[in-house]
Amino acid sequence: MKVLILMGSESDKPVMQESQTYLQFFDIESDLIVASAHRNPDKVRELVINAQPQGYGVIIAAAGMAAALPGVVSAYTSLPVLGVPLDGGLPGGIDALYSIVQMPAGLPVGTLAVGKAGARNAAILAARIIALSNKKTAERVEAFKQNGYRI
Amino acid sequence: MKVLILMGSESDKPVMQESQTYLQFFDIESDLIVASAHRNPDKVRELVINAQPQGYGVIIAAAGMAAALPGVVSAYTSLPVLGVPLDGGLPGGIDALYSIVQMPAGLPVGTLAVGKAGARNAAILAARIIALSNKKTAERVEAFKQNGYRI
Amino acid sequence: MKVLILMGSESDKPVMQESQTYLQFFDIESDLIVASAHRNPDKVRELVINAQPQGYGVIIAAAGMAAALPGVVSAYTSLPVLGVPLDGGLPGGIDALYSIVQMPAGLPVGTLAVGKAGARNAAILAARIIALSNKKTAERVEAFKQNGYRI
Amino acid sequence: MKVLILMGSESDKPVMQESQTYLQFFDIESDLIVASAHRNPDKVRELVINAQPQGYGVIIAAAGMAAALPGVVSAYTSLPVLGVPLDGGLPGGIDALYSIVQMPAGLPVGTLAVGKAGARNAAILAARIIALSNKKTAERVEAFKQNGYRI
Amino acid sequence: MKVLILMGSESDKPVMQESQTYLQFFDIESDLIVASAHRNPDKVRELVINAQPQGYGVIIAAAGMAAALPGVVSAYTSLPVLGVPLDGGLPGGIDALYSIVQMPAGLPVGTLAVGKAGARNAAILAARIIALSNKKTAERVEAFKQNGYRI
Amino acid sequence: MKVLILMGSESDKPVMQESQTYLQFFDIESDLIVASAHRNPDKVRELVINAQPQGYGVIIAAAGMAAALPGVVSAYTSLPVLGVPLDGGLPGGIDALYSIVQMPAGLPVGTLAVGKAGARNAAILAARIIALSNKKTAERVEAFKQNGYRI
Amino acid sequence: MKVLILMGSESDKPVMQESQTYLQFFDIESDLIVASAHRNPDKVRELVINAQPQGYGVIIAAAGMAAALPGVVSAYTSLPVLGVPLDGGLPGGIDALYSIVQMPAGLPVGTLAVGKAGARNAAILAARIIALSNKKTAERVEAFKQNGYRI
Amino acid sequence: MKVLILMGSESDKPVMQESQTYLQFFDIESDLIVASAHRNPDKVRELVINAQPQGYGVIIAAAGMAAALPGVVSAYTSLPVLGVPLDGGLPGGIDALYSIVQMPAGLPVGTLAVGKAGARNAAILAARIIALSNKKTAERVEAFKQNGYRI
Repeated sequence: MKVLILMGSESDKPVMQESQTYLQFFDIESDLIVASAHRNPDKVRELVINAQPQGYGVIIAAAGMAAALPGVVSAYTSLPVLGVPLDGGLPGGIDALYSIVQMPAGLPVGTLAVGKAGARNAAILAARIIALSNKKTAERVEAFKQNGYRI
Repeated sequence: MKVLILMGSESDKPVMQESQTYLQFFDIESDLIVASAHRNPDKVRELVINAQPQGYGVIIAAAGMAAALPGVVSAYTSLPVLGVPLDGGLPGGIDALYSIVQMPAGLPVGTLAVGKAGARNAAILAARIIALSNKKTAERVEAFKQNGYRI
Repeated sequence: MKVLILMGSESDKPVMQESQTYLQFFDIESDLIVASAHRNPDKVRELVINAQPQGYGVIIAAAGMAAALPGVVSAYTSLPVLGVPLDGGLPGGIDALYSIVQMPAGLPVGTLAVGKAGARNAAILAARIIALSNKKTAERVEAFKQNGYRI
Repeated sequence: MKVLILMGSESDKPVMQESQTYLQFFDIESDLIVASAHRNPDKVRELVINAQPQGYGVIIAAAGMAAALPGVVSAYTSLPVLGVPLDGGLPGGIDALYSIVQMPAGLPVGTLAVGKAGARNAAILAARIIALSNKKTAERVEAFKQNGYRI
Repeated sequence: MKVLILMGSESDKPVMQESQTYLQFFDIESDLIVASAHRNPDKVRELVINAQPQGYGVIIAAAGMAAALPGVVSAYTSLPVLGVPLDGGLPGGIDALYSIVQMPAGLPVGTLAVGKAGARNAAILAARIIALSNKKTAERVEAFKQNGYRI
Repeated sequence: MKVLILMGSESDKPVMQESQTYLQFFDIESDLIVASAHRNPDKVRELVINAQPQGYGVIIAAAGMAAALPGVVSAYTSLPVLGVPLDGGLPGGIDALYSIVQMPAGLPVGTLAVGKAGARNAAILAARIIALSNKKTAERVEAFKQNGYRI
Repeated sequence: MKVLILMGSESDKPVMQESQTYLQFFDIESDLIVASAHRNPDKVRELVINAQPQGYGVIIAAAGMAAALPGVVSAYTSLPVLGVPLDGGLPGGIDALYSIVQMPAGLPVGTLAVGKAGARNAAILAARIIALSNKKTAERVEAFKQNGYRI
Repeated sequence: MKVLILMGSESDKPVMQESQTYLQFFDIESDLIVASAHRNPDKVRELVINAQPQGYGVIIAAAGMAAALPGVVSAYTSLPVLGVPLDGGLPGGIDALYSIVQMPAGLPVGTLAVGKAGARNAAILAARIIALSNKKTAERVEAFKQNGYRI
């Protein structure tokens, strides 16, 4: 199972590459794609609808400000969706945090901390999820734990 | 020009009928439709893409919690979009407020106050917009002003 | 139809020129005037009362801290008024945001995001409004969309 | 010297009559008038410009939500202006509090607590101000102190 | 795979039974246990360390106020941990929200909305996770989607 | 009448000298004294009890963090007390703002904006107060107004 | 060693009697006295200065709104001071919380949660402190632990 | 009696050495150990369970973000526990503050201000606690007071 990392803007890359770096530690393949729920809604829809058939098992979605992306992603898939709020609007990314975590009942987004800590933890949580059905990933998750939760 | 009022949930109706009541005062036709950006993304897309051809001039979108609807609506149309944050999640609807007003550059949502005051003001702002090219609406807007900004 | 851009302080200019730059893309004429609701209430009143006769169709009002300008502007005109909260007082411009978006029923201000994103979106929303009755603006709005919502 | 109590809405009366009740204890004459900075800007302007000639020495202004009234009052007078934020919009009246207290340099509003405590304290502060040049009021202020700061 | 639902206090039961009700819809077995990170740290440790061997695949942890439980659970397991902030301390459960979502890098908790919406979404996200390796659950997840994201 | 400016810490001086600079414009004598409600409660008590006999008519009190000074000053005098919240603890000085403005009924503190804007406005409000019984100050207040509310 | 419980207002009694009830469980004598830092500063000073000589070992101070009491108490004693923020002003007692916990360096107040939970925990923390030098109290603290941290 | 200073991360050291510096002034021995409630739960448990037998009388626990450490420490000991919220996540360390101060009834953490002020005050409060049963510490606490609450 691969992980699809979507983010709302080119400028989110430096933060979200943290997710990719961590996924590499877990030997999980991932793709990092810029696709905004607001600028490219049809691209997002296309990517997400096709995610499961193309071998993705988890989707990480990151966005700042009025961060609709993770919720919209959750609406187009039955895969587990993890959300990473990013700074950029109100101080601390509080606008993105509320826009992602406060999803109404029915469409869950598992939300992580704002910024880099969240980007890393999204990858680790994806690894824990994939480890449930993949022994090799499970071993890497154990290795990560032995390593003091550091890569 | 008609006004399309979209709201994320059936339970938003009592608040958003305030918009409709006010639009009636301005002799502006409106339709009130429940369509969630999360539960029915394709329905929202369909409705919004067809809004302008079907004679709508302004779209009012209301939602609570992680209120993605107004932003998603703005992404699918070139009509002016007005957003009404609704209470229901964090106290005062602060989560919905941030989710609607903090739109990134490119996709505007003209945001009104949380709740009933916002629902009313969205209708009045729609009337002001339509009044720019509709003499009759302009007269109603003046009548509203003479009336002490009350219907 | 021209757009009148009012702002509370000389120091708001660098942000609000973003509105003007975007309006230029849409071929919409605009004037950028410093007039504070607190320092120059009579100037604001004069400017706003005369806005419609002088050919303005939309007013953008921007202010920081206890940002009374957009609401006061809305009180003196029947034109659509768009508000841009600016940083400068409490972190993130949260004081200006609340002072602008929480207008009581009767006097709407269509509020955009705090700072530059809001200044840009106010211009785009003004263009969407003017496009309702101006074919050329409508074409520019489409061009903007084709351009990925960038100028 | 009399005290002029202005408030944005009829519904603010039960709270602001607390100011009047306290002013009566101090034997200070007062008038309680509803005049909104948004609904009746010209009435506010008229009242405030004429306040000093008509014998008012202090103006108390109270409003909720995007509470522009106290700041606008301060712009039209050189009398000391005291502001009382009222609940009604965001929880706790935090929107009104920020809209009143965060006045830019030049136009002060001495802001009191949100709601009834603020309405009472505005009256007491007005009494302390008037007491500076009025012996009788000064005696009442002392009596208030002896009384355990209660009327 | 079963789901283990832990909650900090007996009084959290009415909310967290929502998780169980939703899990039943997905034909996922679950156990609901009260175990506080503060009152019963050793019980929590015991339960969590043994969760994977006993057939649990996902742990849902819910708590209010200084909600340490989800983070502590994440520290004792390599299973995916989902956190549900509960109301009870600061308004809206904002204290619990921050205590759960702001986990430092290394120990992820996929956080859902405060209260009932979060309790339901935790169950749905658990179902999406289990569905990755369980066809029957995957079918139930699809059925849920067909049902309009309602049980 | 002179103005007594008290502040909680030596480090508050650069901000509070703004008050003094503005008072000089109004030809009002002032003294600027460091005296903390926490470090020097007896010094504060002494200074404040003697303020009126020594010719002070208004007391400006400024503090950051858990800003008890303005309230404590109000407790020891019948003079009007103006409070200036200072940054230094929570972002934007929100802790100091709440600690000063939320005085319980009985003991008013007329609170100004956080930081420099508040320091300036405290001086201007003091001038407006003194102007009620001092013609020269009243003339300076008018001069300040003519000057565009700038010194 | 006895515990002195001070609170700012008569209306705080129902909450602060929780402290007393818990202290009784620990066989610790306590006195519950209403004394406001704002209404009765000299009474507070007198009580606190004499607390240690009169056999008090810990002071619990509780207040709402601009809660100066705990900090002022800390200024007049070298005993450990515990602070309990109370609801009554801004929602959740956030104003009292910031006014108590954000003490500047030098004058500590060990702050507990807002409201009843804090009132109980202040008593328990006082018991833990007294238990350091009192074997009987230490036994009661252990009994409390055995009892599941309940009385 | 010694003081045990625990902190969640190596990067917290520069702040928490302030505690140690202050404790040295009071001639109180202390140990500063990095042990995270999330990364090293068993190490924390071990350290805390053995703290009292090893001569510690007070535990200071500091952490940022979802700061579970102080609460977890309180769960494993009957010693008084003081908590220091640290910046690093949401602006001003508000996430850590709420995670520490909002402990449920039963398990108290005496919480100090965010950051350096809190680190210093935790040491001073520890000294006040130890001074209750140690004359030499009591003398140092008096010396600290004479010194203007500075070391």
